[in-house]
Amino acid sequence: MTQTPVRLGLIGTGRIGQVHAASIAAAPDAALAWVADPFVDGARGVAERFGGTATESAEELIAAGASGELDAVLIASPTPTHVDLIEASVRAGLPVLCEKPIDLDIARVDALRPLVQSSGVPVALGFNRRFDRDFAAVRDRVAAGEIGELEQLIIISRDPAAPPADYVKVSGGIFRDMTIHDFDMARFFLPDIVSVSATGTQAFDPGAREHGDFDTAVTTLRTASGAVVTIVNSRHSAIGYDQRLEAFGATGMLQVANAPTSLVSASTADAVDAKPAFGAFFLERYAQAYADELREFVKLVRGEASTSPTFEDGRAALILADAAQRSAAEGVAVAVAL
Amino acid sequence: MTQTPVRLGLIGTGRIGQVHAASIAAAPDAALAWVADPFVDGARGVAERFGGTATESAEELIAAGASGELDAVLIASPTPTHVDLIEASVRAGLPVLCEKPIDLDIARVDALRPLVQSSGVPVALGFNRRFDRDFAAVRDRVAAGEIGELEQLIIISRDPAAPPADYVKVSGGIFRDMTIHDFDMARFFLPDIVSVSATGTQAFDPGAREHGDFDTAVTTLRTASGAVVTIVNSRHSAIGYDQRLEAFGATGMLQVANAPTSLVSASTADAVDAKPAFGAFFLERYAQAYADELREFVKLVRGEASTSPTFEDGRAALILADAAQRSAAEGVAVAVAL
Amino acid sequence: MTQTPVRLGLIGTGRIGQVHAASIAAAPDAALAWVADPFVDGARGVAERFGGTATESAEELIAAGASGELDAVLIASPTPTHVDLIEASVRAGLPVLCEKPIDLDIARVDALRPLVQSSGVPVALGFNRRFDRDFAAVRDRVAAGEIGELEQLIIISRDPAAPPADYVKVSGGIFRDMTIHDFDMARFFLPDIVSVSATGTQAFDPGAREHGDFDTAVTTLRTASGAVVTIVNSRHSAIGYDQRLEAFGATGMLQVANAPTSLVSASTADAVDAKPAFGAFFLERYAQAYADELREFVKLVRGEASTSPTFEDGRAALILADAAQRSAAEGVAVAVAL
Amino acid sequence: MTQTPVRLGLIGTGRIGQVHAASIAAAPDAALAWVADPFVDGARGVAERFGGTATESAEELIAAGASGELDAVLIASPTPTHVDLIEASVRAGLPVLCEKPIDLDIARVDALRPLVQSSGVPVALGFNRRFDRDFAAVRDRVAAGEIGELEQLIIISRDPAAPPADYVKVSGGIFRDMTIHDFDMARFFLPDIVSVSATGTQAFDPGAREHGDFDTAVTTLRTASGAVVTIVNSRHSAIGYDQRLEAFGATGMLQVANAPTSLVSASTADAVDAKPAFGAFFLERYAQAYADELREFVKLVRGEASTSPTFEDGRAALILADAAQRSAAEGVAVAVAL
Repeated sequence: MTQTPVRLGLIGTGRIGQVHAASIAAAPDAALAWVADPFVDGARGVAERFGGTATESAEELIAAGASGELDAVLIASPTPTHVDLIEASVRAGLPVLCEKPIDLDIARVDALRPLVQSSGVPVALGFNRRFDRDFAAVRDRVAAGEIGELEQLIIISRDPAAPPADYVKVSGGIFRDMTIHDFDMARFFLPDIVSVSATGTQAFDPGAREHGDFDTAVTTLRTASGAVVTIVNSRHSAIGYDQRLEAFGATGMLQVANAPTSLVSASTADAVDAKPAFGAFFLERYAQAYADELREFVKLVRGEASTSPTFEDGRAALILADAAQRSAAEGVAVAVAL
Repeated sequence: MTQTPVRLGLIGTGRIGQVHAASIAAAPDAALAWVADPFVDGARGVAERFGGTATESAEELIAAGASGELDAVLIASPTPTHVDLIEASVRAGLPVLCEKPIDLDIARVDALRPLVQSSGVPVALGFNRRFDRDFAAVRDRVAAGEIGELEQLIIISRDPAAPPADYVKVSGGIFRDMTIHDFDMARFFLPDIVSVSATGTQAFDPGAREHGDFDTAVTTLRTASGAVVTIVNSRHSAIGYDQRLEAFGATGMLQVANAPTSLVSASTADAVDAKPAFGAFFLERYAQAYADELREFVKLVRGEASTSPTFEDGRAALILADAAQRSAAEGVAVAVAL
Repeated sequence: MTQTPVRLGLIGTGRIGQVHAASIAAAPDAALAWVADPFVDGARGVAERFGGTATESAEELIAAGASGELDAVLIASPTPTHVDLIEASVRAGLPVLCEKPIDLDIARVDALRPLVQSSGVPVALGFNRRFDRDFAAVRDRVAAGEIGELEQLIIISRDPAAPPADYVKVSGGIFRDMTIHDFDMARFFLPDIVSVSATGTQAFDPGAREHGDFDTAVTTLRTASGAVVTIVNSRHSAIGYDQRLEAFGATGMLQVANAPTSLVSASTADAVDAKPAFGAFFLERYAQAYADELREFVKLVRGEASTSPTFEDGRAALILADAAQRSAAEGVAVAVAL
Repeated sequence: MTQTPVRLGLIGTGRIGQVHAASIAAAPDAALAWVADPFVDGARGVAERFGGTATESAEELIAAGASGELDAVLIASPTPTHVDLIEASVRAGLPVLCEKPIDLDIARVDALRPLVQSSGVPVALGFNRRFDRDFAAVRDRVAAGEIGELEQLIIISRDPAAPPADYVKVSGGIFRDMTIHDFDMARFFLPDIVSVSATGTQAFDPGAREHGDFDTAVTTLRTASGAVVTIVNSRHSAIGYDQRLEAFGATGMLQVANAPTSLVSASTADAVDAKPAFGAFFLERYAQAYADELREFVKLVRGEASTSPTFEDGRAALILADAAQRSAAEGVAVAVAL
C-alpha cells in the first residue's frame, strides 16, 4: 500500500457505527480520523479503541473535514439526521457513505436530490448486502447468463426477533425499515421494476399491533420484461437469522443458503442430519460484506471505479418501500417509475 | 379383506384416467367395472388391461350404475363435461370422485351446488396432493402444534415444461388450471383465507402470450388471523418438476424438499455434491398420492370416515382462482368469502 | 411380452423367499410354478398368494423341473442346504439363482465347482445390491471414467439391529454373513483384489461375545493396481439401516447416500434441517434391486446377455470373507488369489 | 486485558511459522519478541510485519529468552531440528510449543523424554486440529454421552495435491508426516489404542513411488474396549482439501462435514444443488484452530489450566505412525502400548 490511507469521519457510534469503526481500523487503506456522537462517551470509546478525535458535534466533524482533516464521512446516526448531514457533507465537498434509509420521507429525499446530483460529490448508500460474497456471486453469475433469462427472484429475509415496540414506533414501518434491504437486493438483480404489490399482517408482535405496523409481509415486484420478485419477511424467526435467495432462470437456478454456524450434524433414532440453528444477526452474518462495502467506498473516495450503491439506489429503494406500504394499506398494485 | 370390492366406473381414459385405472387395479378393495370414453378405443384398451366393460357413452356407464352395476363413478374426462356428469351421477345416487377443476365457470358450479348439498350423495374432488405422504405429514405436524402458530406458508410449484398453446387456450388460465392445486394446498393448511393478491406475467411462453395467459405467477393469500400464503408458479422449470413447501411457524419451520431421482451425488474440481435433476412430472411424483386418494374415496363410498376433499373444497379453490385472475388483471387485492 | 413366462421353482419361503415370490408374481415374464419348504404351511401360503404347486420336498420340486415343469430354480433355503440343491438342480439341467453365501465352507464350494463349470448350466448368486440402481449407476460412471482412476472405495454398511444370538451362532461370522455383500460390492468395482486385512471387535453385542463373533468390523482390501477398499460394518445402527458408498477417483468422487424415508425436514431453535431416521431394512431398501435381480436372472435363463453375478462371484466373496476372518483372528494381512 | 502480553520467540518462518506470527500479532495477550530463521531475510520479513527482533540464530533467540527477554518459544523449523531446540528451550526454562512431529525417530524422542518430564517446563505439541471448533464440539458431545458409547470413528483426511518428490523424500513417510494429525485426532477421542493395522499403496504419485512412500493409506486402530478407528488418507483430492469425521456411537452419530467455500448452490437440467469445490488447504481451513491453539498455549505459559496437547501426545502419535509404517510394510497388526 503506497497510497496514504483515506481519512474518515464517523458520525454515530451505535452498533452499526462501531462496525464501521472496526472495519476502518482493519482496512490498510483507511484511517479513522474523527468520531462524532451527541452521546460523547460513545464517541470517545470508539476513538480510544480505533483512533481519531472524538466530538459530540457532527457539525464540528464536518467542519474539520471542510478544513482538510478528512477525506470522507460515514453517516451512521439516526435516520432523521441523514438528510441534513448528507447536505452538510456535500456542501463541504466531502464524499459520504450513509446508512440506509436516506430518510423516511421521500419528499425530503427529493428535496436533497438536486444538490447531490449537481455537486459531483459522491454519495454512497449502506446497502451492505450487495457486498456479501455469495449474493454478489449469484448476481454476477446471473448477469453472465449462467441460468438464462432471470424470471423469478425469491428473497426470504427474516430477523431473529421482533424489535422493541419503541423502535417499531419510529422505524417508518417494516417496508422502510427492514424490507428496504430486500428492495435494494431486488434492484441489484432486476433494476427495471414497474409495479409493487404487498401484503402485510400482524401475526404475532404486540409492538406491531400497537403502532399500526406489520410483523409479517410478502411483497411482489414486477419488472417491465415480465420477471417477478417475491420478498418474504418476518420480524422473527425461531431458527435464527434467515437470509436466503433463489434466482430462477430459463435454464437453471442459483440459490444462497443460510450461513451454517457449524459443520457438525447429529443423527439419532429420532432425527438425522440435524444441524445447529442459525444464530447470528446481521452484524455477524454480514461482517465480510461490511468490510467490502468500506473497501469499495474507499475506492469511490479516491475516484477509482467503484460499485458502491448510490444516492439514486437509496431513493429507489425508498420509493419501492413507500409503494409497498401503500399497496398493503389500500389493497392495490402500485406502479412505480424509478 | 372380507368386504366386496367397490365397483367403480371410470369416465375418461386420458393420462389421468389411466392412472386411476391402474390404481383401481392395484387396490385390493376396488374393482374397475365400467370404462367410458367417446374415444372408444381408449376405453377398450383400459378395460382390457385393468378390467371392466368398455363404452363410448358416459350416459350408458351412469345408467349401468343406476341399475346396480356400479358403486361409484370416477370422472376424469375434460373439464367442460364435469358438471353434467356430476349431476347425472348424483341423480343416479352414485358417489363421485371428480378431477379438478369442477368447471372453469363458478356460475355453473354454484348452479350445481344445491343438488349436491341436498342429495346426500358424496362428491369428492381430485386434489391428490393432500394425500402425498410428505405434504400430509407436514400438515399433521403443523396441526399438532409442532411449530407453533402457522404464520407463513410458501408453496413453490413449477411444471417441467409449458403446455402446448392449444392447451393453454382452453385451460382457463394458469390460476384455474395449475395454481388451483396450490390453492387447495393452501386451504389444507389454512382454511380461513380472506384475501387474494396475484401478479402474473408473460416471461417466456409464446403460447401464454398468444392466448392472454400468464406463464409466471405469484399469488399471496391472507387469512383472517394474519397468516400469509405465498404461491410461486412457473409453467416451466429447467431443473425438472419443482414442488416444494415451507411452513413457517412461531417456533419452527417444516419444509418439503423436491423428490430426488437418485441417491448419487458427484463431486469434482468444478462442483461438489451435484445430484441429478428432478425429472418426473406429476404422474410419477404423486403416484403414492393417487393411490391413497383412491383408498380414501373407497372409504367415502363405503360410508366410512374419509378425508377426501369435497365439492365445497373444489368450489373454494375455484373461487380463489377467480379472485387471483381478477387481482392479476386489475391490480387489486380481492376479498373472498369461502 | 410375446415370450412365454419363465416358470420358476422357489425353494425356501422365509422372508427372502417371500420377496422372490412377490417379485416373480409382479414380473410380466416370470411365473411361480412350484414352491418347496419343509415347513409346508409356508410353501402353501406362498403358493396361494403368488401361484404354483406347494410341496415340503425340494427334491420333488427339482424332479418336477427335471421332467419339464420348470425352467429354473431359486434357492432361498438355509445356507447349509445350498450346495446340495445347486448340485441337484445343475444335474437336472435347471439354471439356478442361489442366495448368498454358497456355503460357509470353501472346501464344499470348491468341491462343487468342477460340476458347475463343466455343466454349462448357469448358476447365479443373489448379490442383489449390484442391481440397486444407485450403486449400479456409480459403478457404471466409474467404469466410464467419470472420476478417473478409482483409487479408494469406502463402503459403510450397518444393520439396524444385531441379530438374535441363535442366529449369530450359525451365521458363519460377520464376514461370511454380513460383509459378504460388501465383498461382492468391492469386486463389482475392483475385481483384482490381492490382499485382505481386517479388524473385528465385540463392542456391544452379547450374542457376538457368546459365540466368538464380532459385532464391529473394518476390512481393508488392496488391489494389484494400488486401489484400496475400506468396508466399515456394524451389527447395529441407532439411525437405521446405514448403506453408503464413496468412490474416490483421481479426478472426482461419487457418493451414494442413505435412502431418505421422507422429504420433510424440521428446523427449530434447537436444530435445523433434521430429517426422519433411516428406518427400512434390506427388504424395503433393496426392493427395486430384488426386482431387477430377478429380471436379469430371467434373461440368463433365456440365454440372453445377463449381468447376473455368477457362482465364481459367490466363491470369490467367500474367499475374501475367509481371508478377513483369518486376518482379524491372527493379525496378519492375508493374500488372496481370486 | 490487564496482564502483560506473553513475549514469544518464533523459530522458523516458513508458511506455518508465518501463521503463528500472524496469530501472535492478532492475539491481545501475546507479542512477538524474537524471530529466528537461518534464512535471515525470512526472519526479517516476519519481524517487520509482526514485530520482534530478527536473527539467523535460534541459539541467539533462546539465549535472549534465557536472559529474560522471552516468556516462551514456538518451534516451527524443520523437523530434524525439533529435538535439539526443545532441549535447549527446556534447559533455558522456556515453555515450548513445537510443531508436529517431535522427530521422525522415536529413539531421539525417547532420549529427550526424561529431561522434559523432570524439568517441569511445559512442552506443547502443535496438533492444531484439536482446536478446530467443530472437531472439538463433536469430541465434547461424545464425551458428554450424546451418542452413547463411541464404537467407530472414521476420519477422512485427504490433501489437495501431492507434495513435491523432494519433500516426500525427507517427510518420514505418509504416516509420520500426514496421518500423524489423524492419529492425534483418534487419541483425542479414544486414548486407549492397543493395536494398529495399516495398508498403504502407490496409486498415483511418482514421488511416492520414487522414494518408497505411499500416496494412499488406510489405517485401522483398535482400542482396549473394542472401538475401532478408521483413517482414510490420500495425498491428493480433486475436490479440494477433504477433512471429514464421523463418530458412530451406540445411540447416534455425529459428523463433521467439509467446510463450504460458499453458500451458493447451482441447479440445471444436468445437475442440481451443485456447490463450489473445497478449495482451501490447512492454513485457511484451520485458521480458527491455529488462533485457539495459540490462546491455549498462552494459558499454559501463564500456568493456567490449558488443553494444549503435550510432549506425551506427540510421542504417542509418533508411536502410532511407526506402528502403521511397520504394519503396512510387513502385513501384520502391530500392538502398541501408549
